[in-house]
Amino acid sequence: MGKNKKTAITPTRMEDYPEWYQQVVKASDMAENSPVRGCMVIKPWGYALWERMVAVLDAMFKETGVKNAYFPLFIPLSFLEKEAEHVEGFAKECAVVTHHRLEAGPDGRLVPAGRLNEPLIVRPTSETIIGDAFSKWVTSYRDLPLLINQWANVVRWEMRTRTFLRTSEFLWQEGHTAHASEAEALERTRIMLDIYADFVENWLAMPVIRGVKTPSERFPGAVETFCIEAMMQDRKALQAGTSHFLGQNFAKASDIRFQGADGADTHAWTTSWGASTRMIGGMIMTHGDDDGVIMPPKVAPAHVVLLPVFPKDADPDAILAYTRETGDRLRRESYGNRPLSVEIDSRDMAGRNWEWIKKGVPIRLEMGPRDMAEDGVFLFRRDTGERFSVKRENLGQVIRDTLDAIQSNLYERALAFRNAHTVLLDDKESFYDWFTSKSTDKPEIHGGFAMAHWCGRADCEAGIKQDLSVTIRCVPLNAMEEDGKCIFCGERSLRRVVFAKAY
Amino acid sequence: MGKNKKTAITPTRMEDYPEWYQQVVKASDMAENSPVRGCMVIKPWGYALWERMVAVLDAMFKETGVKNAYFPLFIPLSFLEKEAEHVEGFAKECAVVTHHRLEAGPDGRLVPAGRLNEPLIVRPTSETIIGDAFSKWVTSYRDLPLLINQWANVVRWEMRTRTFLRTSEFLWQEGHTAHASEAEALERTRIMLDIYADFVENWLAMPVIRGVKTPSERFPGAVETFCIEAMMQDRKALQAGTSHFLGQNFAKASDIRFQGADGADTHAWTTSWGASTRMIGGMIMTHGDDDGVIMPPKVAPAHVVLLPVFPKDADPDAILAYTRETGDRLRRESYGNRPLSVEIDSRDMAGRNWEWIKKGVPIRLEMGPRDMAEDGVFLFRRDTGERFSVKRENLGQVIRDTLDAIQSNLYERALAFRNAHTVLLDDKESFYDWFTSKSTDKPEIHGGFAMAHWCGRADCEAGIKQDLSVTIRCVPLNAMEEDGKCIFCGERSLRRVVFAKAY
Repeated sequence: MGKNKKTAITPTRMEDYPEWYQQVVKASDMAENSPVRGCMVIKPWGYALWERMVAVLDAMFKETGVKNAYFPLFIPLSFLEKEAEHVEGFAKECAVVTHHRLEAGPDGRLVPAGRLNEPLIVRPTSETIIGDAFSKWVTSYRDLPLLINQWANVVRWEMRTRTFLRTSEFLWQEGHTAHASEAEALERTRIMLDIYADFVENWLAMPVIRGVKTPSERFPGAVETFCIEAMMQDRKALQAGTSHFLGQNFAKASDIRFQGADGADTHAWTTSWGASTRMIGGMIMTHGDDDGVIMPPKVAPAHVVLLPVFPKDADPDAILAYTRETGDRLRRESYGNRPLSVEIDSRDMAGRNWEWIKKGVPIRLEMGPRDMAEDGVFLFRRDTGERFSVKRENLGQVIRDTLDAIQSNLYERALAFRNAHTVLLDDKESFYDWFTSKSTDKPEIHGGFAMAHWCGRADCEAGIKQDLSVTIRCVPLNAMEEDGKCIFCGERSLRRVVFAKAY
Repeated sequence: MGKNKKTAITPTRMEDYPEWYQQVVKASDMAENSPVRGCMVIKPWGYALWERMVAVLDAMFKETGVKNAYFPLFIPLSFLEKEAEHVEGFAKECAVVTHHRLEAGPDGRLVPAGRLNEPLIVRPTSETIIGDAFSKWVTSYRDLPLLINQWANVVRWEMRTRTFLRTSEFLWQEGHTAHASEAEALERTRIMLDIYADFVENWLAMPVIRGVKTPSERFPGAVETFCIEAMMQDRKALQAGTSHFLGQNFAKASDIRFQGADGADTHAWTTSWGASTRMIGGMIMTHGDDDGVIMPPKVAPAHVVLLPVFPKDADPDAILAYTRETGDRLRRESYGNRPLSVEIDSRDMAGRNWEWIKKGVPIRLEMGPRDMAEDGVFLFRRDTGERFSVKRENLGQVIRDTLDAIQSNLYERALAFRNAHTVLLDDKESFYDWFTSKSTDKPEIHGGFAMAHWCGRADCEAGIKQDLSVTIRCVPLNAMEEDGKCIFCGERSLRRVVFAKAY
C-alpha cells in the first residue's frame, strides 16, 4: 500500500475527478454510451443493481398503500401547456413526435410521413397525462387518497450528458397522489421524502441532508419541492430524490375535483415524487475509489465472487469441484431479505481479479490447494483491502458479518467525508475564498457544503450563483432558528442554508 | 342458474363478442383508453397482474442464463434501414421524433423547434439498436453465447387498436441472443418458445399449439419464426409469444462478428423473442364469462377477497374484527411460491360483491354473525359458482385446494373448448362452409381451428386469406407426416397446418 501503488483506474480521483468517474463506469461494465445522442445502454451488471434498487423501493412504496399503474409514453402538446410554469420548465428540452410513418422520399431514402395533427411530447414527467386520468378516477372524497406510482422511462433532451448522472433518456419512478386536504397532501410529500432518505442512507449507504428547495430551484409548477442532497467525493452536491407538494395547481390544470362529505365541490391537493437511475451515479461517486466501484452489500448484484486458483502442479478438477461445492453451500445462506448472491469465475486468466475489484463486488474468495488442505478459503474485502483465511464451516456467518461491516463502513466513511468538508461560514470573504479553489490545488475540487445565512431574497441567491456557480441546495428541515446575517447582502436571516456546487 | 339469469356484462359473449370484451375490460377496472390515440392506461388491478407475469417470466429466463439490460428508446433511422425486410416491416407504423424542443410560434403557441439532423424512431422492436451494442460486446467465441433480455415499452402506430390486444404503445420483453453456431441459436429459439408455452399453459391456464410460421407471417428479417397459438372463445386464434431464429441476417446488418477457436472470423447467429401485455387480452378472452374476468390463481393479483356482511341488528365492530383476524391468518399462509394475497372490502354498499366478480378474484369469502357463531366463513368460487361454508381451522388448506382446482379447471375448460372447435377438414367445400358462418348463427363467431393440408405455396395461402380472411396460424411442431392434398389447389401435401381467423 505504498505511495506509488498502481491503481486500476487512470486517472485517480485527485488527478481528474470527472474523467475518473467516466473511467470507473467503463471499467465496472455497468453502462456505456449509445449511438443515440445522450442515451446510455445499461449493461447487465448495472441493470442488476437497478433491479435491486427497484425491488427495495417498490416494496417500501407499497407498504404505505401506493399501487403501481402505467400511463402513456406520449403527452399531447396541449396537455403539457395546461400548467404554465410546467411547460415553460420542459419546453426547452423535449423530444417531439411529429409523424407516424416513414415513406420513400424523392431520392428513394425514407423520410417522415403522416404528419400528426397535434405534436406529441415524449414524457419528461407525467403530471399532466396522469392528472387527466385522475380527473376521471376521482369524483368523491371516498376515492381519496389516490396513491399511484409508475416505473417508466422519461426523456429530457439535455445538452451535456454524463452516464447515469444526466442522460437524455433515463429510468425512474414517478409517484402521483391526490388528497382531500392540504395537510394530508403535505404529509404524503414528507412520507415519500423520508422513504427516499431511508433508502439512500440505509441501502445505498449515502448520508443525505433532507431539505426544501428555494423557489428558484423548485419543480416547475410545484408549491414546494423537498429533496435529499448527498456530497460526492469532489465535494459537489447531488440531489438523489425529490418530493413535490403541488398544492391545487395541477388539480386545477387537469380539473381533478371531488365532492366532499359535506357535499361541497373542491379541487384535490396533489403531490409527485421521483427517483431515478441518477442515484446509481451518486452511489458510484460516493463510494468508488481509485480501483473502481464499491457496491454497498445490501444492493450489490453479487455479494461474493468465488475465484479458484490453479497452480501449475495442482489438479484443476479437484479445485473446481471444491469451488462449486463452496458456491452451492453459500447459495443456501441468506443476507438480509434475500439469498446470498454468488458468482463463480473459473477463468484461468490474468486480470480476472481486477475485473471484480473494478465491478465493486463486496467480497472475493480465492481458493486453491492450500485452502483446500485446511478446508478453508481466502477472503478479500473490497472496501478496506483486508484479507484473511476462513474455515468453510464458519463461512456463512463470516460473510454476513463482513457484509454488514462493509455496509456500515461505507456509510460512516461517507459521513466522515461530508463532515470534514462541511463548514459554517459567516462572512462573504471566507465564503468566496472557500469556493474558489483556495482550499485545494485541484481546480475541479471546490469547497464542499457551506452552512451560511441567507436573507431569503432571490437576488442574493442569483448573485452568488453568477459569481461562483454555487447554489442553495436546500433549506435543511432540521435547521434551528438562529439569528444571523445574509452571506451576500448582510441583511437579517433566521436560518442557515446549504450552499454548494452541484451536479 | 336459469336461462334468464341476469349477467354482469352486457352484451354477453354470444350476443356480441368484441363488445363483450371491451365491457369486460372496463368492468374489471384493469385498463382504459387514454387521450393519446391508441395508447392505454393500465390501471392498478391490470398492472398488478402484469407485475406477477413479469416476475414469473423473468425468473424463468434467468434460470436459463439470460441477463437483463436496457437499451435506448430511440433508434436512428439509418439503423432501422440496415436490414431491408425489417425496415419495410415497420416503416408504415412508427412514431418519428423530428425535433428536440418547443418554442413560441408566430401566434404565440408552442411549435416544434430544434430539428434533428437524423429522425429518431421510437423503438417498435430493438434488433438494430441492440445489434449495434452486440457488435461491440462480441469479439471472440469466448464472448458467446450472449443472452440478453430487456423489459420495455415499444410503439407501433396501429390504425385499429383494442385494449391489451393491439395498442400503439405496449409493454413487453424482448430477448436478444448471439451464438457461435447455427445449431446453438436454433436451440435457443426453441428453448424460449418452450418457456413461453410453459408460462402460458401452466400460469395463464391457456392451452397453446407450438408451431412455426409460414414465410408470409414471419417476423420481418427472420429466417424462421416460432410461435404459440391459443384459441379465444369466439374461436379466433391469438398469438401469445414468438421466438425468432434470425440466422446471420441481423449479425451481418449490425456486423456482429467473432473470432472462433480456430482463428476464423465469422458472423454470429442471433435470435430474438418477445411476449407482451397482449397476453393479458388473451387471458381475458380465454377465461372470461358473462360476469367478467376470471383470473387464473397462479397469477391473480389477489387470491381471496374478504367481504364482511353487516345485518341490521349485528355488531359491525365484532364482524370487522373477525374479518381482520381472518385476513391476518390467511396472509400467513402461502400458495405456490408466494404468500396468499388477501384483500378486505368492508364497504357496506350494494354492488360490492359484483365488483369482485367482475375483477375475477378466484375466491370470495363472506362472513357475518352466523359464520362467526360457527367459527367459519362462506366461500364462493368464481369459475364454477360453487359455494359452501368452511371452518376457519381448515381455511388455509381449503383455499389452497380450491385455487388448485380453479387453476386446473380453467385450463381443462379451455382445452375442451379448443378441442370442440378443432376439426380435420379434407375438402375445399367443407373448409369454406366451416369458415363462412354456416356452423353458427352469430356472424362474429366463425369456425375455429381447421387442421387441413397445404401444399406449401404462398399462392394458396393468399387465396384462402383473400376469400375467407383465414390464415395459416402455424405448422405445428408435433405434426406427423401424412399424405394429403392441399385444401386449396389439391396438390400433394405432407402435413396438416392450423388454419384460423386471428387477432
